[in-house]
Formats: sequence, C-alpha cells, structure tokens
Amino acid sequence: MSHNSFGHLFRVTTFGESHGPAIGCVVDGCPPLLPLTEADIQQDLDRRRPGQSRFTTQRQEPDQVRIVSGVFAEGDGPQLTTGTSIGLMIDNVDQRSKDYSDIKDKYRPGHADFTYDVKYGIRDYRGGGRSSARETAMRVAAGAIARKVVPGMIVRGALVQMGPHKIDRNNWDWNEVGNNPFFCPDAEAAALFERYLDGIRKSGSSIGAVLEIVAEGVPAGLGAPIYGKLDAEIASALMSINAVKGVEIGEGFAAAELSGEENADEMRAGNDGRPLFLSNHAGGILGGISTGQPIVARFAVKPTSSILATRATVTRTGGEAEMFTKGRHDPCVGIRAVPVGEAMLACVLADHYLRHRAQVGVIEPRWPFEG
Amino acid sequence: MSHNSFGHLFRVTTFGESHGPAIGCVVDGCPPLLPLTEADIQQDLDRRRPGQSRFTTQRQEPDQVRIVSGVFAEGDGPQLTTGTSIGLMIDNVDQRSKDYSDIKDKYRPGHADFTYDVKYGIRDYRGGGRSSARETAMRVAAGAIARKVVPGMIVRGALVQMGPHKIDRNNWDWNEVGNNPFFCPDAEAAALFERYLDGIRKSGSSIGAVLEIVAEGVPAGLGAPIYGKLDAEIASALMSINAVKGVEIGEGFAAAELSGEENADEMRAGNDGRPLFLSNHAGGILGGISTGQPIVARFAVKPTSSILATRATVTRTGGEAEMFTKGRHDPCVGIRAVPVGEAMLACVLADHYLRHRAQVGVIEPRWPFEG
Amino acid sequence: MSHNSFGHLFRVTTFGESHGPAIGCVVDGCPPLLPLTEADIQQDLDRRRPGQSRFTTQRQEPDQVRIVSGVFAEGDGPQLTTGTSIGLMIDNVDQRSKDYSDIKDKYRPGHADFTYDVKYGIRDYRGGGRSSARETAMRVAAGAIARKVVPGMIVRGALVQMGPHKIDRNNWDWNEVGNNPFFCPDAEAAALFERYLDGIRKSGSSIGAVLEIVAEGVPAGLGAPIYGKLDAEIASALMSINAVKGVEIGEGFAAAELSGEENADEMRAGNDGRPLFLSNHAGGILGGISTGQPIVARFAVKPTSSILATRATVTRTGGEAEMFTKGRHDPCVGIRAVPVGEAMLACVLADHYLRHRAQVGVIEPRWPFEG
Amino acid sequence: MSHNSFGHLFRVTTFGESHGPAIGCVVDGCPPLLPLTEADIQQDLDRRRPGQSRFTTQRQEPDQVRIVSGVFAEGDGPQLTTGTSIGLMIDNVDQRSKDYSDIKDKYRPGHADFTYDVKYGIRDYRGGGRSSARETAMRVAAGAIARKVVPGMIVRGALVQMGPHKIDRNNWDWNEVGNNPFFCPDAEAAALFERYLDGIRKSGSSIGAVLEIVAEGVPAGLGAPIYGKLDAEIASALMSINAVKGVEIGEGFAAAELSGEENADEMRAGNDGRPLFLSNHAGGILGGISTGQPIVARFAVKPTSSILATRATVTRTGGEAEMFTKGRHDPCVGIRAVPVGEAMLACVLADHYLRHRAQVGVIEPRWPFEG
Repeated sequence: MSHNSFGHLFRVTTFGESHGPAIGCVVDGCPPLLPLTEADIQQDLDRRRPGQSRFTTQRQEPDQVRIVSGVFAEGDGPQLTTGTSIGLMIDNVDQRSKDYSDIKDKYRPGHADFTYDVKYGIRDYRGGGRSSARETAMRVAAGAIARKVVPGMIVRGALVQMGPHKIDRNNWDWNEVGNNPFFCPDAEAAALFERYLDGIRKSGSSIGAVLEIVAEGVPAGLGAPIYGKLDAEIASALMSINAVKGVEIGEGFAAAELSGEENADEMRAGNDGRPLFLSNHAGGILGGISTGQPIVARFAVKPTSSILATRATVTRTGGEAEMFTKGRHDPCVGIRAVPVGEAMLACVLADHYLRHRAQVGVIEPRWPFEG
Repeated sequence: MSHNSFGHLFRVTTFGESHGPAIGCVVDGCPPLLPLTEADIQQDLDRRRPGQSRFTTQRQEPDQVRIVSGVFAEGDGPQLTTGTSIGLMIDNVDQRSKDYSDIKDKYRPGHADFTYDVKYGIRDYRGGGRSSARETAMRVAAGAIARKVVPGMIVRGALVQMGPHKIDRNNWDWNEVGNNPFFCPDAEAAALFERYLDGIRKSGSSIGAVLEIVAEGVPAGLGAPIYGKLDAEIASALMSINAVKGVEIGEGFAAAELSGEENADEMRAGNDGRPLFLSNHAGGILGGISTGQPIVARFAVKPTSSILATRATVTRTGGEAEMFTKGRHDPCVGIRAVPVGEAMLACVLADHYLRHRAQVGVIEPRWPFEG
Repeated sequence: MSHNSFGHLFRVTTFGESHGPAIGCVVDGCPPLLPLTEADIQQDLDRRRPGQSRFTTQRQEPDQVRIVSGVFAEGDGPQLTTGTSIGLMIDNVDQRSKDYSDIKDKYRPGHADFTYDVKYGIRDYRGGGRSSARETAMRVAAGAIARKVVPGMIVRGALVQMGPHKIDRNNWDWNEVGNNPFFCPDAEAAALFERYLDGIRKSGSSIGAVLEIVAEGVPAGLGAPIYGKLDAEIASALMSINAVKGVEIGEGFAAAELSGEENADEMRAGNDGRPLFLSNHAGGILGGISTGQPIVARFAVKPTSSILATRATVTRTGGEAEMFTKGRHDPCVGIRAVPVGEAMLACVLADHYLRHRAQVGVIEPRWPFEG
Repeated sequence: MSHNSFGHLFRVTTFGESHGPAIGCVVDGCPPLLPLTEADIQQDLDRRRPGQSRFTTQRQEPDQVRIVSGVFAEGDGPQLTTGTSIGLMIDNVDQRSKDYSDIKDKYRPGHADFTYDVKYGIRDYRGGGRSSARETAMRVAAGAIARKVVPGMIVRGALVQMGPHKIDRNNWDWNEVGNNPFFCPDAEAAALFERYLDGIRKSGSSIGAVLEIVAEGVPAGLGAPIYGKLDAEIASALMSINAVKGVEIGEGFAAAELSGEENADEMRAGNDGRPLFLSNHAGGILGGISTGQPIVARFAVKPTSSILATRATVTRTGGEAEMFTKGRHDPCVGIRAVPVGEAMLACVLADHYLRHRAQVGVIEPRWPFEG
C-alpha cells in the first residue's frame, strides 16, 4: 500500500513538491524490450507544459525529462526498456523566489492547505507543495510509457464543456484538438471558449470544465470482477487528479434517466470475427471488463480556487482573516488536465493488460466459441 | 493484488456465485476488542434483502449470516473481535432450479455474459454467476463491521432520483427513508416514485436512479495525497457496485458550471474549536483529505438490463439471436444499492481511519495550531 | 496489505480458529479452465491430516474440503476453474470439549499466548485459536491448486534431519517418502527416526527437525529482482509456517564456508538447448530468478513447545505460575510440516509464474540468443 | 505489487543501475514531523561505502545522498518530514569507463547474467546493471529513516563468521565493531579475519560469511499472524540482499537439535512491569509477534562469485567459453552487508510499528492485564 503509487502491475510511484529541487517518478513492472527514449515522453509532457498560452499559468517550466534507469541500448541499437524499474526526473526551474508570508499562515479556501495541516501538522506551503498540480507532470510521463504497453491502443482526450458551454458533438473532429489552446474537438466551440475564458481571466475569476477521454484499440477482456473492475479503477485514477469532482463511464449520470430498452447495447455478429455492438451506452465496459468497443470516460474539474477576489478564511493560530491569491494561475485548470486524463487512462489500461496476461495468458479474440 | 478484495488495512475479500451453495467474505485487519455479533450484521443485511416489496426481485433469500471466525466471547462476556481474520458466510437458499438453456448460449445485452466468456473462456451462467448483484450482500455484511471501526461515524444513504424524477431537497428527512420501499428521504417524491415504478414494472421495463450517501462524524484528516485520496477511493468503491456508471463528490459535475467564487468554501473560526466552513461544495474533502464536514457522494445506477422486451444479441458460437429475459428482477436495481453504497463508503472510511492512525498516530482535532 | 493473505497474483487468504466451527480460505487470481475437484485437493490434505500415526497428534479431523465457489461444470463436462475467487471450507469436527481453565490465564512457554494478548488484548485460547497449526490445512488446500498452475512442475518434500540425526543423502529415494510416517527419503534413517521418536514421545518431550522441499520442472526466468526475488519470497513463505526458525536455499548456511571457486556453478551447453549447470550450489536461483535447475529449499522446525514437563511461566494478571501442557500433541511437529512446505513452495512458484507471464508475456526457453 | 518495492506502510521503492547516471529511492508512508537531514542518512551510507579498506572493492563512490522531497524546514526551524513521499538520490561517480566486451556476451558463473537474459531478453551488463550490490546503498539510506520511526529502537549488526572461522561470543563487544574493517565484535577474531582474508584476497579467491543483526528496544506486540509474521518478513528482507542464501531467527537451524525443554523460553514476572523471559531462544519473536526481547536474526552470505580463477561458462549465442573476472571486487562481500542487514531489519520493524498502530492503535505495555 502506498499513498504515492498507482497501478498494480504497471505501477507508478511519484515524489516531489512544487517548489522543491525536482519532481520524479518510478515506473515498475514495465515489460522489457519496448523502445523508449526521452523524446517519446517529452512529446506528451510538452502538451501539458504550463505557459504555452494566456489561458494557462505563466510559470515557465521546460519540463525536460531525464530517464535515470531501466533502459539500455546495446552498441548502436535502439534504447529499450530492460524490465527493471524506470526512474524519471524533471528539475524544477521556475520555482519563483517569493514572499510566502501570506499563504504560510492562512488557509486558502478550496485548497488543501487546511487539510494538510490538520492531517500532518506540517505543510510545505511553497506553491502548494505536494498538493500542487505540478505532480501531474509525472503522471503524463508515466502515461507516455503506458501507451507503449498495449499494442495498437490509442488514447485521446478533449475538453467538452467549459462552464455552461458544451461542444456540439456533431462537430467532433480529433484533428481540431491540437488547433486551439483548449484541446477542444469542435472548432466553433473553441472560438466561443476563447472569448468566454478571456472574460473570466480578465476578471480574475475561474471556471470549471468537463473532459472526455477515449481509448480505442483496447482488446476485449481487460478488467476483472469484482474489485478489479476496469471502470472502478478508471474512476479512481481520474478522481485522483487535482480538482476532479466527478467521473462517469459511457452514459454516466444520464443512464439514470434511461430505460432498460434504451440503455442496454444490442449485439450482432460482425464481419471481422468480433461481436458488433449496435451502440455504446456502456462506454466499452460490461461487468467491469472491456467489450472491445472504445472506452469512454468523462470527468468534471472544479474551477481554480485561486482567484483575485477577497475570501473569508482562518489562520493557523485560530484567527479569522481575508485573503486573495495573487500569483500565476490557470483560469480554467481543466484545460491542462486533458493530457493528464489521457495518461491516467493509459496507465489503467496498461495495468489491466498485464493483469489479464497474468491470469489468462492470452490476449486475443475468443469469440465465437466452439459449440 | 486481488480482483476480489477491496480496502488496504480494512480489507475485504469476497467469494461465491449467485447459484452456488453459499457466498462469503473475509474481513482482515479489523481492530480487536470491538463488540460484534451476527445480529449487528443482520440488521444491515435485512435492509438489502430481496423480496421485501413488489419493487425488488422476488427471489426469497433469508440472507442469514454466520460469523465463522475472528470473534471470541470469554465466559459470559460480550463477543468481541480478536484482530484475526473474520470469516462470514451466507448460504444460498432460493437458487431456483431452472432451465438455463436460454441464457447459457446467448449473451444477454447489457450483462457481463459476453465479457466473461471472452475473458475467461468459461462462465457460470446460472443466475449471472459471479457477476450477480448477490455478491453485494457480502459488501453490506463487511460494511456493518466497518461502521464500528470509526467512533461516532454515521453513514446513511438515500435514493434521490428515479428516471427523470428528482426529490425536493427541501423535503429531505432522514426519518422518511425507512418509511417507503425506495429509501427515499422525501415523502412526496416517494409517493410519486411508487406510481412511476409501478408503471415501469408492469410494462416489463426498468429505469435508472441516482443515490446519495452521506457520512457524518468523520474526523478531519482522513485520506491521503496523491493516490490514496479519499475521493479517489470512494469513486472506485462506488463504481465497483454492479450497474453503477457515474460517481461524484460534493458539487460533482455541477462544479463544471461554477466559478471559483461560487465553488470554494469559505471558512470562519467555529466555537467548538474546529474551523467552520460556510458551505460544503467540496463534499467534505479537500486535496483528498477529509475536512471534518459531512462526506457527500452520489452515484448513478443504470436501468436493469433484464427486461421483458425482445432484444438482438449473439450466441457463443457466433450466430445472431433474439432474446428476452424472464425471471425475477428489480425494475429499478438502484433501490437496493442504497445499503450497498452505505457499506462501501463505510469500508473506505474505516480503511482510511486505520491508514491515518498508522502514519500519523493520532486522530484528533489539530486546529488551531500554536503560532 | 493483509495479515492473512499471501501471494500477489496467485493470492490466498485464510480464516478460522482451531476450535471454531470451520476453517477456510479464498484463492484469488487462479487461471480459468484448470480442472479442479475436491478430490484433487483432498489427496494433499490427507497427507497432512492428524491422527494417522502415533507420531502425530491424536486429534481426529477428517479434513474434508468443500469447494464453495470458483468452479463450474457444464453439462457432463469436467469441473473447471472459472477465474473467479475459489472459496474452500473445512469443518472442524474434533474440537474436543474441554476445560480451558489452565491455559486461559497462563501463558504457555514457547507459544504465542503472551504475544497475542500483549498485541490484541484478547485471544481465543481454545486449542491455540488462530495460532494453531490447524490453519496450515488451508495452505495445503491452496497448494493443491497452485500445483496445477505451473505446467510440468513437481514439488516434493522430505524430512532430512530429526534432532541430531541426519539422513544419508546417498540413500535418497523419493519412493521411500510414502513408506514411513516421517516423510523420510532414506529407509535406514526412517527406522532410526522411529526408535528415536518413540523415546521422545514416551518421555513426554519433543524434538526439532529439518525439512527439504524440491521443485522440479520450474521454467527458467521465474522470480524478479529486487524485492520480488524468488528466494526472498520462498524464505517468507516457509518462515511463515508455525514453528519455523530458519530457511536456506541451495548451499544455504554452508555457503559461508565455501570459496568462490567452490560455490559458483559453472556452465556448459546442454544438448537439449538449455544451459547445463555443472552443479547446483545455488539451489536453482541466481539473482532472485530461477535457472531452470531444481529449486532446493530447507527449513528448520523447532521442537513442539507443549511438553509434559513442568515449566515456569506467568499469568495474565501478573503472577508467576508453573504449568505443563496436557492434551494431544506432535512429538516432532516438523513431520507434518512436509506437505505444508510443499504447498508453500508451490504457491510461491505459481505466483511467480503468473507474475512472469504478466511482465514478459512468454514462458519459454530463451537461450541461446541470436548473436 | 512491485518488484522494486518493499514494506507495506513504510514502503521503499528503489531504482538505478550500477553504471547509470544515478541510483535513487522513494520512501512512502513515513510519519510526519520526524527530524531528517542528509547528514542523518549519510552517516549510515558512509559505513557501507566502498573503497574504505583493502578488503572491499576499490570503486570510489562518495555516495553523497540528496533529499529531493518530503521534508520541510520552516524559517530557522529544524528540517522535518512532511508525510509526503521522500525522494532520495545518489549520483554514480566512479562508473569507470571500460571495455565490456568480455562480460557482455558471456555469463559469469554465480552471477545473475544468465537469468536476467533468459527472463527479460536484455540486460544492462555494465557492472552488473540492476543486479549489482550498488542498489543496497538505497536500502541503507531508507534504513536510516526507518530507524527514526520506532522510538527507542537500536539496530546493530556484526559479522560473526568468515569462512570456517567463528567469533567467540564471550568476547562480544559492540564497541569493537567500529574498530576493525569487518564489523567484527570480537577483537581477537578480527585479527584472525584480517590475516585470513588477506590470504584469500591475494590469491584472487573469495569467501562467505555469516552476519548477525540485533534490534533492541522493540516494543512487544509488533508483527502479525499469519502471513504478516515479523520473522517471515525479516526472512524475506534479509534474503533479498544480494548473495544471501540463508536466514535464521533466534536458535535458527540449531533449534532442530533441541528438545522442547531446551528450546521454549520460560517466563517470570519482571520488576519493570514487563514479563521477564529467562532465555531468548526464540530470538524475540513468538507466533510472529515481538516479545519485547531483542530481535536476533542471522544470515549467510555466499562468497563473491567474481574471482581471479578461470571458470567454465557459456555465451549468449550458445557456445562454450572460459572466463575469469577482472575488476574491482570484495573478497568477502558479506562484510559490507552488515549495514545493509541493519537497514533491512530497521525497515521491517518500522513497517510493523505502523501496521500495529493501524490495527491496534496503541503501542504500550499491556501486561499484566486486569483479572
């Protein structure tokens, strides 16, 4: 049991604080002989990196990852994983020297300041310490490795709602996601989001968001009843991301309003030797096990708690106080959670791929069965 | 790692199929010296038991629990836990002998039939085998023990939405929950639910629901960053319940539409030496750690997939077929999930109570701190 | 984490006390489609069963195992594992009603009475409660399943030393093991053991023993550096057996007296495409990973602490007392540990077989490699 | 589950290869508010450091540790643990650039070269890669933190046998351990070891050893039946150290030759309110739980496999070859295992201290009990 690890067979352990010298992680259980370079990881890190648009924090972190262990290149051959634990490090560069007098004694509303103190009796208040979303860089790094574990798997994410504004699903185009600073798959909605968030940003306020992550190419049979359910582990993985308050699979909360006829996905025989589901209300998971359809998960991110409005709070020593949070912040922290959500889903699926291989030994279509 | 276990320090492992001779579980890590009798567990089991109204399956199971190990009474003294593993058993009584010819070769849409076969190459199709919600009886039994682990904690649940109909939160009265067969805290809504579900039931259809579970008396400081977050583990625990498709904490998905000003809970100094939060949008958890406020979680349950309508499906051997599911079913399977949700939340909190005690050693209000 | 579980992917959780109604276990992670009947398990249990000679306790327990879950037979087909958790139960039959007044307040020297009380503040003193070797019946049951997980593996054990008397390794004949009540592979030594132990038994004393367990047909490549080393997990598994005080692999403690020339096993190319080791000082494990040679482990079992001599002890309430232990006991508790040791080794190897399959995916000879 | 982690609640995960840029570890679950500086860790590392006498490898590694996360000093206050994961790093300095052509294709007898290749299909052969004892530096670092977790605990180790030569226990003086390069508590034996090992070293051979680790000040009640036994976890921890082939507790293998009268430790009432054991054959553990007496564990270390004699072996591509191992080596690798063994025992005890606190909540003498 570890508070700072996730996954079982593809297991990630992270460490590091926002304003410490570095953050890092250890990836354990990775299969050997997978090609892996720092560039493979860097491309995902670059998508999460702060300071790339006016809509994310202006902290400037190159987030340059180093692989410290677990890979080996023989002669001029490719660098491959060796099956030993992979150590990854990112130095913190822009942990701006500043005056912490305001936040060291007052609890910022909506932040973990109070709960860390009440639990541990101590907290590293510099930039949020361990509770900072900076930790998610290591999730993204681990996710880049996870993506290589499941052959043929593609995991992509998008922002589908900002405040009250939802995208039009008819406009969904994965190619648009890279064309705007919001990871938005609907070009029209992206334009709207830009205007909307500019207003939020200028007013010093913040807003929540909903993200959707989709994994395609996932073999049927991953996951396990009863407490190793794929959806249960996805829920945990996504809910563990900073500021997330809700997770749903497939129809999610909308399923509460559906009848059995509307919700259960009917099946036909597919030409490719796989069953053909006529819909995907289930989000690719039945009984905790993947169906072979795309895995579809959504999660809600609350608005950034650090805003430029004055808020009522208390001090460590019991007094009452007012505070407002200066400094560099994301007006919609949900935006940068897109690559993080992708990484978490990739890690869960890599883990279950290995778990399935352990218990069952084969990963292949079993259907149809001999009579 | 175990597919059939949940929890870390308060750890529950279950076994048993719907139509096997018995179901059972092992509760490991329970503190010693807690009073525990079969009656303590039975009262929770009786709330989940099938066949108690026309709105739940007519399977008649007394669900009589036996404690096989882990307790001891000295002389005439009370029966106490001993700190060793607690074995619990419930015999299956009404595993109605029937003809399985229809379901053994066809995959019921919305069920785990296909995914079990594709994963394992074999499935116990009698009554759903291991995927049956019958397994949740053991969760309720374990939950009854978990409730005793955290002193002063009260965990209660309610059904707050059935299909499109939501309760009126102004009518919330916990005392109403036991007065209707829906665990509904709003007497008016309960009357509506009764009429509505009678229609669903008679038509052979089914409908989804939303449930809310609230834990009061939870000390501040439970939970742990980063991957041992209380909300992440609650999400996993609730999502692992059969038919659940979404989980949210506090404001949940509604937080996506809130601004930072609206969402972050402000604080004042309370008279009782605890901080006074002026609202509870966070659902009692900040940074993955309990605040001392009530923990509030909701989850969505999909409609029962077994309905009296003919559905398209496939057979094990690759053919196409139509089927409809006869037999005993719940028109709204969400109803009986209320005690199950309570049990899961109680187990997560018991687990984190022990985890906190391990790392920090004290469970007490730490605030305010000396300057 | 569980105090009552062992293994990671082939995971066993046990429960039950010596004089409770039953003992049981849950085997989780077993691959599906393995043939498994109660008879398969019973044959191993019968080898451990008490009351079979005058050299083991006269408690009469049929140790009849029931499989409660996790298997399924379709029509007239064989009963197969389904991949779900396997529940096993054995009713306690001969928990002789007796007067516990002597042991409930006094701590028996060499037993866990004192340590249970000081840890938990309570103990089930009837027959040793949870600390009784009765629990090992469930290990043997689980081991019978584990033996089926690794194709071609044979795990056998023998008693190689009783008190000061060691077997002559030149006389080793596995066929002799079943011909005497000591699991002794040397017929001459068995005759000596019989005379020797009769003397011990009649005097009301007891004596220690050393056992050796050998696993053949174990593929090369099982185990994992650094903390998943095969030998480390064997050490833990064997040391967890009641009364065990030492464990060694291959040369074991004798390696302390060897030079590098004497100890390191040289290699040649074998005709069968495997490397040919010229000796097996390593006991089949190098760097925590199996070499393909037989795995050889030994463990020392202390003498039974319950003897007919008067011993100095203390009472729960702080007084001093004398006691001697009446009742049914094994004069050499090591004897019945042979099938238990076999079971533990089989479980560790089954677990590592699944762990290897998870990370590496193939179980086959890799050597020689292409240049 | 992790191959590169040990411990459950005090959990250590290591990474890094012998000739990679750095080695590191993450310590998770450490209680907050413990004073911790790099100097605290460095003093233990310095005891393990290579190159300090002619009897250990001449590799020159300063082994300078950096704490990357998990500690915080407020203002001029002491640096304290915060309860978050502690990241530790040691840069590799003297990974001598050399020609690996000899070892990259041939398997060194007694080393893990062959087993790594057969398992993973790849290995970092530079200096033994992950299988190098260099990894144990991180164990020592983690152990330095573990020592702080259990108040009043002192863990010390000594070399008690080198080849055929055993110390005289009547000469045991802990103060001598630091006076010779062997961690030998017997000054006379140390002189003998020096002459003996000089001969071994000059001949290019190597020799095995036996080490003893003693933990004093361990509260009674740590450990847990059945599979969380303190002795089982000690066995695993010590057996996981490179080159260890046997582990024993208390009397260990000698217990096989004892009678029940000789072995079971009698008890009297002590003046200090604790039970007084009249002997410690048990090595401080009964039923897997600490008695309050010193914990005594011994382990055997095989001779270094790298020697200056020509040995028969095979190549990766299937050919036969001869090899002898040049380079820097320890003639008795057991010597430097002393601080490693201490660290492992300290970690196991820290882990069980937290586990006990989790389940039972109090760590205090419970004896005598009220009647």
